[in-house]
Amino acid sequence: MLTVLRLGHRVHRDFRITTHCGLVARAFGATKMWITGDYDKKLISNLREVVLRFGGPFDVDYIKDWKNLIKSHKESKGVIVHLTMYGQRLLSALNDIRDYLDQTPILIIIGAGKVPGEIYGQADFNISVTNQPHSEISALAVFLDRLHEGKELDKTFNNSQTKIHPSIRSKHVEHLNPTHNNRNSS
Amino acid sequence: MLTVLRLGHRVHRDFRITTHCGLVARAFGATKMWITGDYDKKLISNLREVVLRFGGPFDVDYIKDWKNLIKSHKESKGVIVHLTMYGQRLLSALNDIRDYLDQTPILIIIGAGKVPGEIYGQADFNISVTNQPHSEISALAVFLDRLHEGKELDKTFNNSQTKIHPSIRSKHVEHLNPTHNNRNSS
Repeated sequence: MLTVLRLGHRVHRDFRITTHCGLVARAFGATKMWITGDYDKKLISNLREVVLRFGGPFDVDYIKDWKNLIKSHKESKGVIVHLTMYGQRLLSALNDIRDYLDQTPILIIIGAGKVPGEIYGQADFNISVTNQPHSEISALAVFLDRLHEGKELDKTFNNSQTKIHPSIRSKHVEHLNPTHNNRNSS
Repeated sequence: MLTVLRLGHRVHRDFRITTHCGLVARAFGATKMWITGDYDKKLISNLREVVLRFGGPFDVDYIKDWKNLIKSHKESKGVIVHLTMYGQRLLSALNDIRDYLDQTPILIIIGAGKVPGEIYGQADFNISVTNQPHSEISALAVFLDRLHEGKELDKTFNNSQTKIHPSIRSKHVEHLNPTHNNRNSS
């Protein structure tokens, strides 16, 4: 089980960035994103609407006490991966992390702004996706893509209302009838 | 030569997203990003400051007439890759695109908001990095990471003032003396 903890969300400043983090988490195979920092009702409802439309499993929730989340994750023998430009090389640790993938819950921590120093100590792996500045969005995507060895690129989702089919030059969008619409029209 | 065209930038709304696109373009091996849509002086100067600090080669510029950019790119036999959730599967086209990599300029187009329909026709490849909604930031990163087969993860940059070294648990930051500082202190 893969979950993501987004640290230090700021309501206006990070709205779109955290939204993209949530979309990446879902698209690349995580099943949950915890958001800490400012509570942001609109962000959570927007991400849940995407799940309703494009399918799951994926959920997003606000958590005030992220230290407790980390503590209970460690108590249940979960592994913590912190993505940071200061960390060890992605490729040097990827096989070790992949060994946990089907057996142990993995919590991936991504920051906004300055990450509290204790995270570096709490994490089992501090991983850098390049040692260059870029984005928590891209770091999360490349990490998950490499962790899954590309299998998530063709991942299918349950209970989607809308399905996009690959197409060389056009938009091929399939609109499915969700259960509650069927009920309404019956 | 790899360059990126960022379509439809909106000054306030896209400031951070387009910044992250530029950082990804640089970190994952492109040498230039063109921005079209609203002119955004601060965005361009922020990205140039990153290049000054962390090294290049990378540049960013505003372009008003993106149609002309596409036209001249095609006239010089360049290849156009448009990243879109509606496109063909990344893995089905990756080898074909990689064949061009060392011989032909590749222009990667990423959108903000709705992409003009003609882009789908102009592109040599419309590529989807998953057919799920996520982010132009993550699409660009995963595409470039896969195109370079991970070689860009250890890419070094020229003339950097700051260099981050991989580290398992701490921050290892090296501050180098840029040439103009040496001049001042001599």
